[in-house]
Amino acid sequence: MPYVHDTLTRLNKSSPAQSEFYQATEEVLECLRPLLEQSDYYHDHSIIERIVEPERQIMFRISWVDDAGKVRVNKGYRVQFNSALGPYKGGLRFHPSVTSGTIKFLGFEQIFKNALTGLPIGGGKGGADFDPKGKSDNEIMRFCQAFMSELYRHIGPHCDVPAGDIGVGTREIGYLFGQYKRLTGHYEGVLTGKGLNWGGSLGRKEATGYGAVYFAQNMLAARGEELRDKTCLVSGAGNVAIYTIEKLYELGLDPSPVAIHVAPFMMKTV
Amino acid sequence: MPYVHDTLTRLNKSSPAQSEFYQATEEVLECLRPLLEQSDYYHDHSIIERIVEPERQIMFRISWVDDAGKVRVNKGYRVQFNSALGPYKGGLRFHPSVTSGTIKFLGFEQIFKNALTGLPIGGGKGGADFDPKGKSDNEIMRFCQAFMSELYRHIGPHCDVPAGDIGVGTREIGYLFGQYKRLTGHYEGVLTGKGLNWGGSLGRKEATGYGAVYFAQNMLAARGEELRDKTCLVSGAGNVAIYTIEKLYELGLDPSPVAIHVAPFMMKTV
Amino acid sequence: MPYVHDTLTRLNKSSPAQSEFYQATEEVLECLRPLLEQSDYYHDHSIIERIVEPERQIMFRISWVDDAGKVRVNKGYRVQFNSALGPYKGGLRFHPSVTSGTIKFLGFEQIFKNALTGLPIGGGKGGADFDPKGKSDNEIMRFCQAFMSELYRHIGPHCDVPAGDIGVGTREIGYLFGQYKRLTGHYEGVLTGKGLNWGGSLGRKEATGYGAVYFAQNMLAARGEELRDKTCLVSGAGNVAIYTIEKLYELGLDPSPVAIHVAPFMMKTV
Amino acid sequence: MPYVHDTLTRLNKSSPAQSEFYQATEEVLECLRPLLEQSDYYHDHSIIERIVEPERQIMFRISWVDDAGKVRVNKGYRVQFNSALGPYKGGLRFHPSVTSGTIKFLGFEQIFKNALTGLPIGGGKGGADFDPKGKSDNEIMRFCQAFMSELYRHIGPHCDVPAGDIGVGTREIGYLFGQYKRLTGHYEGVLTGKGLNWGGSLGRKEATGYGAVYFAQNMLAARGEELRDKTCLVSGAGNVAIYTIEKLYELGLDPSPVAIHVAPFMMKTV
Amino acid sequence: MPYVHDTLTRLNKSSPAQSEFYQATEEVLECLRPLLEQSDYYHDHSIIERIVEPERQIMFRISWVDDAGKVRVNKGYRVQFNSALGPYKGGLRFHPSVTSGTIKFLGFEQIFKNALTGLPIGGGKGGADFDPKGKSDNEIMRFCQAFMSELYRHIGPHCDVPAGDIGVGTREIGYLFGQYKRLTGHYEGVLTGKGLNWGGSLGRKEATGYGAVYFAQNMLAARGEELRDKTCLVSGAGNVAIYTIEKLYELGLDPSPVAIHVAPFMMKTV
Amino acid sequence: MPYVHDTLTRLNKSSPAQSEFYQATEEVLECLRPLLEQSDYYHDHSIIERIVEPERQIMFRISWVDDAGKVRVNKGYRVQFNSALGPYKGGLRFHPSVTSGTIKFLGFEQIFKNALTGLPIGGGKGGADFDPKGKSDNEIMRFCQAFMSELYRHIGPHCDVPAGDIGVGTREIGYLFGQYKRLTGHYEGVLTGKGLNWGGSLGRKEATGYGAVYFAQNMLAARGEELRDKTCLVSGAGNVAIYTIEKLYELGLDPSPVAIHVAPFMMKTV
Repeated sequence: MPYVHDTLTRLNKSSPAQSEFYQATEEVLECLRPLLEQSDYYHDHSIIERIVEPERQIMFRISWVDDAGKVRVNKGYRVQFNSALGPYKGGLRFHPSVTSGTIKFLGFEQIFKNALTGLPIGGGKGGADFDPKGKSDNEIMRFCQAFMSELYRHIGPHCDVPAGDIGVGTREIGYLFGQYKRLTGHYEGVLTGKGLNWGGSLGRKEATGYGAVYFAQNMLAARGEELRDKTCLVSGAGNVAIYTIEKLYELGLDPSPVAIHVAPFMMKTV
Repeated sequence: MPYVHDTLTRLNKSSPAQSEFYQATEEVLECLRPLLEQSDYYHDHSIIERIVEPERQIMFRISWVDDAGKVRVNKGYRVQFNSALGPYKGGLRFHPSVTSGTIKFLGFEQIFKNALTGLPIGGGKGGADFDPKGKSDNEIMRFCQAFMSELYRHIGPHCDVPAGDIGVGTREIGYLFGQYKRLTGHYEGVLTGKGLNWGGSLGRKEATGYGAVYFAQNMLAARGEELRDKTCLVSGAGNVAIYTIEKLYELGLDPSPVAIHVAPFMMKTV
Repeated sequence: MPYVHDTLTRLNKSSPAQSEFYQATEEVLECLRPLLEQSDYYHDHSIIERIVEPERQIMFRISWVDDAGKVRVNKGYRVQFNSALGPYKGGLRFHPSVTSGTIKFLGFEQIFKNALTGLPIGGGKGGADFDPKGKSDNEIMRFCQAFMSELYRHIGPHCDVPAGDIGVGTREIGYLFGQYKRLTGHYEGVLTGKGLNWGGSLGRKEATGYGAVYFAQNMLAARGEELRDKTCLVSGAGNVAIYTIEKLYELGLDPSPVAIHVAPFMMKTV
Repeated sequence: MPYVHDTLTRLNKSSPAQSEFYQATEEVLECLRPLLEQSDYYHDHSIIERIVEPERQIMFRISWVDDAGKVRVNKGYRVQFNSALGPYKGGLRFHPSVTSGTIKFLGFEQIFKNALTGLPIGGGKGGADFDPKGKSDNEIMRFCQAFMSELYRHIGPHCDVPAGDIGVGTREIGYLFGQYKRLTGHYEGVLTGKGLNWGGSLGRKEATGYGAVYFAQNMLAARGEELRDKTCLVSGAGNVAIYTIEKLYELGLDPSPVAIHVAPFMMKTV
Repeated sequence: MPYVHDTLTRLNKSSPAQSEFYQATEEVLECLRPLLEQSDYYHDHSIIERIVEPERQIMFRISWVDDAGKVRVNKGYRVQFNSALGPYKGGLRFHPSVTSGTIKFLGFEQIFKNALTGLPIGGGKGGADFDPKGKSDNEIMRFCQAFMSELYRHIGPHCDVPAGDIGVGTREIGYLFGQYKRLTGHYEGVLTGKGLNWGGSLGRKEATGYGAVYFAQNMLAARGEELRDKTCLVSGAGNVAIYTIEKLYELGLDPSPVAIHVAPFMMKTV
Repeated sequence: MPYVHDTLTRLNKSSPAQSEFYQATEEVLECLRPLLEQSDYYHDHSIIERIVEPERQIMFRISWVDDAGKVRVNKGYRVQFNSALGPYKGGLRFHPSVTSGTIKFLGFEQIFKNALTGLPIGGGKGGADFDPKGKSDNEIMRFCQAFMSELYRHIGPHCDVPAGDIGVGTREIGYLFGQYKRLTGHYEGVLTGKGLNWGGSLGRKEATGYGAVYFAQNMLAARGEELRDKTCLVSGAGNVAIYTIEKLYELGLDPSPVAIHVAPFMMKTV
């Protein structure tokens, strides 16, 4: 489709050096081709141009002091990609590989993942090129406080509700929420992924893995098939993989690394 | 200097595809080498890491409707580079060539240009890849209103005070200010470059060109020389060049295109 | 009652040329006469003086540009009549007949209509003398955006929650909500009457008509009578009338235009 | 001119029962006829439609308790007429004759009066139908506090800066400012007409009267005439008249009631 | 424990003349001794130092006018003690005995009382040294309005949600909420203890007394005993005592003043 | 005077254990006795009750981490004593001796010191019981940032403008202002005492000492005497004493420790 092709060509120019993001937009738009070819509506209302460009991207300098007393500088991101269906929602990733392109790629996919829940939530993503590995607890705390000292003005319960992601677990969410509360004075629903003893949800860690299995069960049922007749393959070593395996065991399957296969869909941590 | 070199290497990675910006940082830091070599202070306090990374960058989608009723999408920018000396200050440029890299390059230089005034103003820059050429008055107005509908939450008299630049003259500043006033209800000093009949300053158009000549006069006087003994060469065709020539004429010099030379310094429009 | 009479006389003077509003206040206060005569409480605490005067009325100029590029001017209203029981609630009407008097009349009745629900909601009403007939989709959008550019600072989930009314359906609520979200950054419960696919409620269109029939059934049951023994007359040609008829059919009645009569009460669209 | 005539006809309909306001608009537009006929600009940009409709009108219920412990109800107004040149500015009038029409008439004229100063101030007006006569100091205070409890959210140093007028002197401005400060916590330039010992300006009371005489002097001088050769007639009995007479005495004229005539222009208190 | 002892010694110095507060901290920390001795965690993270010092205390002057027209001055308090588990929550007490020390003592205990509910609420307390006895309804209203004119900026649905306490019943909560709504324009969950006909909860008055009996029943059941086999003694003459007795009667016990004993725990009004 | 006596007696009860503050109020009110006895005005309007009670006092917990990684807890204060004449103004003191009583004593005197300048500034004072002695630069920075993370919501250019005092010099003001700017995004006039190279005032250090000498000169001149005929005695060893001596030298006096005497008035640093 020339419409999609032209839009993506312009995107490469206006958002240079973001290969993961181009790949994500191409894949999603390719999937949508049957829909886009069906009607001129999408072209006439510039839907594609609008959906591939984030509504708002905030990038910020994070200055913090390490245990040796030296000022360290990192780069923080929050991409508020699309709020057509609800407040922005999507995780924060703290990892040295984080760039503008990875955050945009993840934020773009988050729009569609969130829409599939049927809940009124939009898509966003954020993070920093900070490496939590080898940092002390106090360094993590100081970094999180510095990060939130900027982020707090851009988020809110009806505006943007970040979650955790790689490098951002209950400890980091705790430091982030503590700083948000200190600065705004509000104890409110502005972050998900909180620890169980101060407001977190039960079963959060298991949710994505269990959900993947339930989803596979239902999808197969729709075709008149059963999961128990299948050989399952689980890839990955994080929470999603672990709890997928746990649930498969519970259902009486034998998810040995060689045998388990939940293809053809891929699972990623929310 | 390895400190400068290493910092710039990391910058290329964390801010990819911004060649104008790399050039600007290299030139400025090269100029500062005598200072940076003189003391460990700058290294020990991570001054260079901090000054090459903007405090905050905001990029946003601008959706507006052209005269044919079609939704158009542009990309807006505001780089709030450094506020160590005062609120961010720097122009808005509307031109199809505008990218993240050009805005950062201009914003970085603006820190030092503004610091040289001795006034308490920091450095920033913004704009959009919007091409005002061939647009109707109503299209310009609608674009400006859409641009300000996002920008208004990020600026303010003590926070960030944009000015005009290429593609943003008194007409555009008027539309932008009108929308700011409509949304905030405040008639306040949040933009410079206003028209004369509604709050603008006398002599604004002439200021940079005249100032260049006054500066040359004073610099030469400091060496015991006089401008009138010099051959002046003026490059450029905008307001700066025109009013440089006008002032040179007034002082009795003959600034014919071949003869005028105000080197060795370059003049740029603020 | 001289108290009621005197209050209304003063009202005619302080709020001139609002005949629909006088009529509404007279009718309501006449209904309340048994209550008002029963105790001096209402007089001693100036309850009537307070309830006939809106807590706040906002009238504003709406400038917008039509498809021909011409600036058009309309007059917008939001009457926040009474918040004793909860946030203001009441529709927005876009119709050339809208004046200060009609909005106040509707807002005054809304206080009592809302109180009867038993929910914590106060009474309000608003709109504009804008005629949506013959306007293009883009003109409707621009008008709605201009209207909300003023209204957004006066409403909020715990302050005032407008709904639709004549000339304001899901399309207009969509444009209004979109502009509210754009300006505040908040996706929150500030308007009712949203479209089904982005946050609206099921059965909203049918609710008032169905409810009228259910109400009649219950009222008759309280007297030991049945709706099926009655001849029903439905007046009107909007959503209320249509869904009243639909429900009557469902119940096995024959609501032919001549035969249907749901008197003695009148139904109006909320 | 049909353009003016049509606009005013529509105005009578959309703003009924405001005869003083119609008169003011007719007079001003009649004065401007030479300008309006000179160019289509005003018609093409709908300037008249826009200038005769206030940008924003706020009307509010003021409930306060008199010394006998009875709740009293008044009606408050703030008409923010035009901010093209600067923040709204214009007095507050407390007088039983105050209606929507008188406030709009005064606010409309204020636009032009303020524009003539050459300062960046727009036009507005406000007040209440409260009668200060016969009220105790405590009643005045309580009324002013109740009035400001609503007004404070609509004004501000860069938004709307009310002054005094009939019934609103330094005492009332004091109570109003005190309540503004109590509610916002800000001691700022939000009201003019303050008492001398807590921030007021010297010569404020005399300014309008003295200014009228200076203006007459200059106007006559422009024609090569002198005030001392004239017979002056001063009408009125307020501050303006008193200080006009005082200044005329100082200049050696004999402004006995029969003799003084400063026509053909009229003076009003700002 | 020297850690507890040293902390309390410093507390006496930094918060002088607050004997009720010292007693409360000593009792609570003594109860916690087994926990505190079990691990160095509490000492190493300075938990005790942090929990005995309120996060924020606000004290303010309340000027109000009595029925004789005389300005009266009282002292208001709001101690926002700890928000680790949720927004601050705790009553307002209007009583001449109120001092900084009593409010801190009550606020400190409120942290633990609220934590025991398992709900996400923190601890706070407030009030004034105002004596409601012998005051007219209008004086109570004016005092409450003056009190809230300061308090409103420190509370909010997600920040601090006061309740009633001694001297603050549904009437006072009504005046306080009315003033909060007038100043903020928000009808929201910022105070508990509202009257039944405008948003209050059923059974609120009975809740603490009934709850004490239910608690005793459950505690005894845990030991295999029954309340009906016990002699109960109820101390006090307020809502808690009255409804404890009522519930005991309902359960068939004979709570005559001599016979009723619900020891060993004490009941206090929330 | 029984009025003064009774007020102070009540003050001792409502504000226990603040001996420095009682002393200050007694001295000031004793000085004012001639005025207070002259008219019933002060009694009838409860002026003394109002002036001895701060309009607002905020006390807060400051948690910060020392270089050893241990959480430390201090107590912060801001007493906003009186804003009758302008925004609160007065220094911040960081010293282990700081208590509620010392801050109130200093804040009370600040009202009158500031009033004597003739400028529109009210009186306030603040600080913390933090001991800057022996702390590293990073510890000072972290403490200042923690202090400002609470204070920033209570101050502002038109509300409360703290300065430095003991323990708070240009370094601390720098850290405090930096944190204020980081959290609010506003580079504005919210603190005085800034360093010269980022917005401070020339001659600030010398101002109080020089001013004391100029004041003495003028006071003597009013009696027809001259400073040069006097023996001057300067007490103290801070900025005030040092620059008093410097100025006396400049004027040709010999301010040797034994000889200098600027009595009978005392000088304190503002």
